[in-house]
Amino acid sequence: MKNYEKYKVGYFMPPVNEMKWTKKDHVEVAPDWCSVDLRDGNQALIVPMSLEDKIEFFKFLLNLGFKEIEVGFPAASKTEYTFLRTLIEHDLIPDDVTIQVLTQSREHIIKKTFESLKGVKKAIVHLYNSTSLAQREQVFQKSQDEIVEIATSGAKLLKQYRETMPESHISFEYSPESFTGTEMDFALRICNEVIDIWQPTADNKVVINLPATVSMSMPHVYASQIEYMNDHLHQRENIRISLHPHNDRGTAVADAELGILAGGDRVEGTLFGNGERTGNVDIITVAMNMYAHGVDPKLDFSDMPSIVETYERFTGLSVHPRQPYGGQLVFAAFSGSHQDAIAKGMAYLEAHELDEWMVPYLPIDPHDVGRKYDADVIRINSQSGKGGIAYILEQTYGYAIPKQMREEVGYLVKDISDNAHKELSAEEIYEIFKDEYINVFTPVDINDATFKKVSTYKSDDGMTVDLNVTIDGHSYDVSAAGNGRLDAVSNALKKTPYSFDYTFVTYSEHALDADSNSRACAYIAITDQSGKLYWGIGIHDDIVAASINALVCAINRQNKIRPLNK
Amino acid sequence: MKNYEKYKVGYFMPPVNEMKWTKKDHVEVAPDWCSVDLRDGNQALIVPMSLEDKIEFFKFLLNLGFKEIEVGFPAASKTEYTFLRTLIEHDLIPDDVTIQVLTQSREHIIKKTFESLKGVKKAIVHLYNSTSLAQREQVFQKSQDEIVEIATSGAKLLKQYRETMPESHISFEYSPESFTGTEMDFALRICNEVIDIWQPTADNKVVINLPATVSMSMPHVYASQIEYMNDHLHQRENIRISLHPHNDRGTAVADAELGILAGGDRVEGTLFGNGERTGNVDIITVAMNMYAHGVDPKLDFSDMPSIVETYERFTGLSVHPRQPYGGQLVFAAFSGSHQDAIAKGMAYLEAHELDEWMVPYLPIDPHDVGRKYDADVIRINSQSGKGGIAYILEQTYGYAIPKQMREEVGYLVKDISDNAHKELSAEEIYEIFKDEYINVFTPVDINDATFKKVSTYKSDDGMTVDLNVTIDGHSYDVSAAGNGRLDAVSNALKKTPYSFDYTFVTYSEHALDADSNSRACAYIAITDQSGKLYWGIGIHDDIVAASINALVCAINRQNKIRPLNK
Repeated sequence: MKNYEKYKVGYFMPPVNEMKWTKKDHVEVAPDWCSVDLRDGNQALIVPMSLEDKIEFFKFLLNLGFKEIEVGFPAASKTEYTFLRTLIEHDLIPDDVTIQVLTQSREHIIKKTFESLKGVKKAIVHLYNSTSLAQREQVFQKSQDEIVEIATSGAKLLKQYRETMPESHISFEYSPESFTGTEMDFALRICNEVIDIWQPTADNKVVINLPATVSMSMPHVYASQIEYMNDHLHQRENIRISLHPHNDRGTAVADAELGILAGGDRVEGTLFGNGERTGNVDIITVAMNMYAHGVDPKLDFSDMPSIVETYERFTGLSVHPRQPYGGQLVFAAFSGSHQDAIAKGMAYLEAHELDEWMVPYLPIDPHDVGRKYDADVIRINSQSGKGGIAYILEQTYGYAIPKQMREEVGYLVKDISDNAHKELSAEEIYEIFKDEYINVFTPVDINDATFKKVSTYKSDDGMTVDLNVTIDGHSYDVSAAGNGRLDAVSNALKKTPYSFDYTFVTYSEHALDADSNSRACAYIAITDQSGKLYWGIGIHDDIVAASINALVCAINRQNKIRPLNK
Repeated sequence: MKNYEKYKVGYFMPPVNEMKWTKKDHVEVAPDWCSVDLRDGNQALIVPMSLEDKIEFFKFLLNLGFKEIEVGFPAASKTEYTFLRTLIEHDLIPDDVTIQVLTQSREHIIKKTFESLKGVKKAIVHLYNSTSLAQREQVFQKSQDEIVEIATSGAKLLKQYRETMPESHISFEYSPESFTGTEMDFALRICNEVIDIWQPTADNKVVINLPATVSMSMPHVYASQIEYMNDHLHQRENIRISLHPHNDRGTAVADAELGILAGGDRVEGTLFGNGERTGNVDIITVAMNMYAHGVDPKLDFSDMPSIVETYERFTGLSVHPRQPYGGQLVFAAFSGSHQDAIAKGMAYLEAHELDEWMVPYLPIDPHDVGRKYDADVIRINSQSGKGGIAYILEQTYGYAIPKQMREEVGYLVKDISDNAHKELSAEEIYEIFKDEYINVFTPVDINDATFKKVSTYKSDDGMTVDLNVTIDGHSYDVSAAGNGRLDAVSNALKKTPYSFDYTFVTYSEHALDADSNSRACAYIAITDQSGKLYWGIGIHDDIVAASINALVCAINRQNKIRPLNK
């Protein structure tokens, strides 16, 4: 027998399986969210949270907008009991927030649970017992009737104890734990027997929570199970169907989403999917998936870097770099073609003043979750292209490099990344770029240039220049004429003993937006006799001086006269 | 306008939407797997792999059983070109393995791609161009007809260049890149025009790859798109439909699984979901999900710890502790009730000699992926229960602690974990247990005991003992009778000046399996006048000595005489 042969599907298809939910293609209204970070999440941590941590984490959850928060199992642990009492006694629960506590179906535990709630304004008492075939046979060794008896006797006790707390608004939740390993008709029976005892009303609905305690099936099977329950639960109008998927098969998000289409009103989950084993469903992903479809998620994840930092500090777990919406790399494009498409998409968005987000390779605008384009999106290593490098130099430092120059700058930067075998930051790219094109351009260094306008009867736009230039430590005075200032300087330089030999190819100039004093930045390309291009960049307050600097830079680069400070 | 209002659904429903695939509830045969770790995965790494790394990683993929491996974009990068040449020239590709190379639809790139393949036995040339509405409008500024022309002209060139390589078996793959943002009738049209050029046969099938380049929809929508293509592609019998989901919405596994039901024959993905942004689909999860349903996954993940180590070393990424099947914590149970159910499930499995795996909270047998029960499953911190602690002491060290003793041992260990605010290893638990119950039990220390059988006319099973015992450094000789050896010793000890006052409660003993020399281990409980229990453990080669040691241990603990070495 091969190892895989010892497994069979452990779930049960519902007796009726209509898959009506497949007619809907996306979620149109956010469900109610219940955070179980402080119970299910905490109980799966290598080092569980302390009392102080729990109080801070509770406030953190409030700030994200959670209105229902499971705070623990107060009858089972001293820390959880004290935590709950602290929340109540220090009035830390806002009026619009309902806390939830978990209890087994045993009288002394139920009694202690209600004691722990004394003075609370609103709470959900969450009763559960295990219903799966495996648990009934192996752990409890009880019949279906006996398992129902556990649930209904607990349900009666909850009702009884609630009557002792008329000053609080107490609602109930029931979970057939290990629902996904339970026969569907039995799951339906046990839930309906509990509902019949509790008699929910429109003002005090009952939560029926249908957990994938262990995920056992493909997500559409879970959805069909939810649909069956949705179609057959008693007093459905006064029930909130709650989903509580775990991620054993990597499909908890899909379980939650398809489950919502199939009838789920509420999702229990955690931030970044913390929880037993592979974790609970990640509420952030489910909520942001709705957001990306234009639906108000009713939770606030606009400052993701701070959410990640807080989460990691309290749980001791890290958020994976590829975790949807929150991971460090989830908006990153290293490859040239992706960078190019993103840059074009961003330009298109701006040029067409689009209201709607539709940028290739970016499922949402990184700004919406507090991420930055320069640091988080276009990232440069040996796989990157000229487009991405040009994008960073323009977006972050204001250099709109001419199209014909981009390939040269691209190879310059990529080769350094390849040789150093590492990613380059925006600062490092800028340093490479400055060292090559912008830093002090001695030894060819123009000290002074005096221009005179030349007027003849033919034309009045000629120029002459008297130039004082230092080359390799020697000072030269040369004069020349040209059809403009730049041309005159070029002609004068060619008259020095160095006899520079080049042809002028192209010129462009723009204001350096990144600087408040709006200096000009000029780009000049010249060629040598073989047609090889040499680019130069010049920066100056004065646009003429900038262009002259650019020419000198190109000449220096052609003649391999490196800046002195290299 | 609120931020979420700038999003609309960016996908397109197929013109016909039957959802016939929902009639199937699980995958029955594993699809063809194609690893894109070395292309899609590598291009998303902060530090891409070197040539040497790629060769080692290729061998690693072969060992896992991959038969199709995309090795890169040889015309776009010198490293990828050299890598491919090295594989071919050093004969590193087994005969049953097909490599795959990516190319854009441009003649000089296609030409170089075929050059890079010279001498290969079997290869797939993978042609792609972008087809989505966003890319057509923003990046290419081309009409649908012009985009089709890019695909068909490339398809013709591939056919033409293939004819120059009759000695190699070259197949073709076409991807309408950004398929999920493409109108479905247009995606169908472009694929069919390519198929019509290529004219696939049963011996040389064409791969039509339908990527969720960016995941834009819920997984059942992707499946319905696959179903539409499946129903309408030309020459379907000679086509392999390939799925290539990315994980932007956290549903790549569901996309792949539902896509297989809807007609997918093949899955392109990576180990642990490495890849652009949120990554590609994790092939390990999809394959192991089938495994857990009793289906041969045709890949070998039986040594997960070594797979994780190798993957992390080559990619520089870490595998998240909650990553399905591979993460450190995915079989871990910290909570008492889960530990208890797992221990009962494991015992049930053994007692009933079940062929089928059905243990609560363990979706698969951790042994099947090379994980250990003691280190990976039952883990002990302040959330844990007596069942888990007893399980570890029994499974790892051979101490079958009596049921009535478990609560005491549980609290002893949990309190230490709670105070130290950390998880305890099996060794640490064993140390705590030994220090409390087993280490040298002076100052009450029995030096010698001589037994004599007592025969009277009434009975012959009485005993007397002559005992020499050291208590607090003083030596005493006492004699007493009893109905057996233990009882005699007990009575003798009560005769010492210490006048120990206790009632004997229970006794059990077993061979210590963990030791090869099979020593006996005895457990004895006594009570004081108030009814408080004191447990003692004794270990000895001789079963009588073990029980006497256990009694002395219990007496020492009752009288708070701690071992001298504490």
